[in-house]
Amino acid sequence: MTALLGANSPLRRVAIFGGTHGNELSGVLLVKHWEEDAAEVQRTGLQVKPFIANPRAVQKGSRYIDCDLNRVFDPAHLGKETLEDLPYEVVRAQEIHLLFGPKGSKDAYDVILDLHNTTANMGCTLILESSKNDLLIQMFHYIKNSLAPLPCFVYLIDHPSLKYATTRSVAKHPVGVEVGPQPQGVLRADILDQMRRIVQHALDFIQCFNEGKEFPACSLEVYQVMEKIDYPRKENGEIAAVIHPRLQPSLLRGSRLEAAEPRGPRVSHVGWEDHSI
Amino acid sequence: MTALLGANSPLRRVAIFGGTHGNELSGVLLVKHWEEDAAEVQRTGLQVKPFIANPRAVQKGSRYIDCDLNRVFDPAHLGKETLEDLPYEVVRAQEIHLLFGPKGSKDAYDVILDLHNTTANMGCTLILESSKNDLLIQMFHYIKNSLAPLPCFVYLIDHPSLKYATTRSVAKHPVGVEVGPQPQGVLRADILDQMRRIVQHALDFIQCFNEGKEFPACSLEVYQVMEKIDYPRKENGEIAAVIHPRLQPSLLRGSRLEAAEPRGPRVSHVGWEDHSI
Repeated sequence: MTALLGANSPLRRVAIFGGTHGNELSGVLLVKHWEEDAAEVQRTGLQVKPFIANPRAVQKGSRYIDCDLNRVFDPAHLGKETLEDLPYEVVRAQEIHLLFGPKGSKDAYDVILDLHNTTANMGCTLILESSKNDLLIQMFHYIKNSLAPLPCFVYLIDHPSLKYATTRSVAKHPVGVEVGPQPQGVLRADILDQMRRIVQHALDFIQCFNEGKEFPACSLEVYQVMEKIDYPRKENGEIAAVIHPRLQPSLLRGSRLEAAEPRGPRVSHVGWEDHSI
Repeated sequence: MTALLGANSPLRRVAIFGGTHGNELSGVLLVKHWEEDAAEVQRTGLQVKPFIANPRAVQKGSRYIDCDLNRVFDPAHLGKETLEDLPYEVVRAQEIHLLFGPKGSKDAYDVILDLHNTTANMGCTLILESSKNDLLIQMFHYIKNSLAPLPCFVYLIDHPSLKYATTRSVAKHPVGVEVGPQPQGVLRADILDQMRRIVQHALDFIQCFNEGKEFPACSLEVYQVMEKIDYPRKENGEIAAVIHPRLQPSLLRGSRLEAAEPRGPRVSHVGWEDHSI
């Protein structure tokens, strides 16, 4: 995937979302920290807003209250009358849509960095929602180089029903940040540090971009879901197998070995570990 | 801790509880498997009952529905009138009390093996609720020897308010089995295998005991909570620190190094990781 820089106007408003899923704690802790002390995320000429996306789920320590906030930013949900008895996350999505959008309008925030954790061994992963977004391809390239030798993967979601419904999709340039493995409801310092560094590098890139720094054309290796492989199941639908212990820690590592393929490596996401984004 | 065998009558009824906490999946999967095919847990002269303790929490994939099932087996909860509007787990506790108890009576099950997981790095841990239970000290000694060279720790809970309220406390001989680290809601084959081996060895011990095998006096190294150390907190009570990455995987390992102390090694349990039992 190659990119020139496609956006010409500076990026002025950036939001950092933690707690889109209330039990993914790295982003929750970082956002709460930056709400109290923003020094680390301030950049000249940039308005940066740390924001807890689903405060009730954070309070409860669960992924969500009524339904997944990261799936309801589609027109059908955003357009629902508030007179109806709506799920909490749909009401919250409408609030976020007004605060950081309206989605698809010129008034929308330029960038949303949406911070997630996963129990899956995905390491540092950046999620790209469009292969046409030259600005984000450059940003991700910059972050990868800045993190090296720590690996950083790029996961391209181009399935319309998923990418257009995410919380971050309110912004002109939606950035998903997924760091693992970390159990839900638990904080690990190494995972926290990696996420923190990703956010720093993203903001540094935006500052450089706004200052007119030139970014030469670059290419980016991306991962895509090629196939979903379900578990063997019993007649009643219950799972009848677990991942073999030799495969458990290396599902993604195995994929990396195929990175020489011209179309990029394969990732077979399996369903039992919570890798939802 | 030393023990002779204190129980003279054979142990005839053993229950294996999975899903006392609905999101601790190793026990859930094993118990469901043994409910369908009990061959692995059958022993001559022994009635073995695999049992899902909190089926609604298992269905929901959460620790519990209304309150922690593993804290309500005290007389106050077990004696509540069912006419009241009781939490689900209190009703369930009363059912379990009738099915496997009554607690403290001669009709109670002989042994309950209660299967738990934790995100903490506790490895294979057996939980003992009384330092006077010679039978269980012998059983744990047998399991430790059978698992070797895989380490197996014994955690002695002798705090009255905790030990008398656990689900397994319905049995004459309550055995807690805690295996980690594993995220809640996730299955790892290595953890599953370790838990499965512990149950096998426990049943083997009971069979040997019933057959009159002699067990010489033995001693057992046990871990106890010496001190609970809270996190540094902000004024609003929120946690303001995480475990240092160099300490994260070795909190228990560090304790093991002190095993030469006559009173056994210290364990400082810290609060953020979910090590609840």
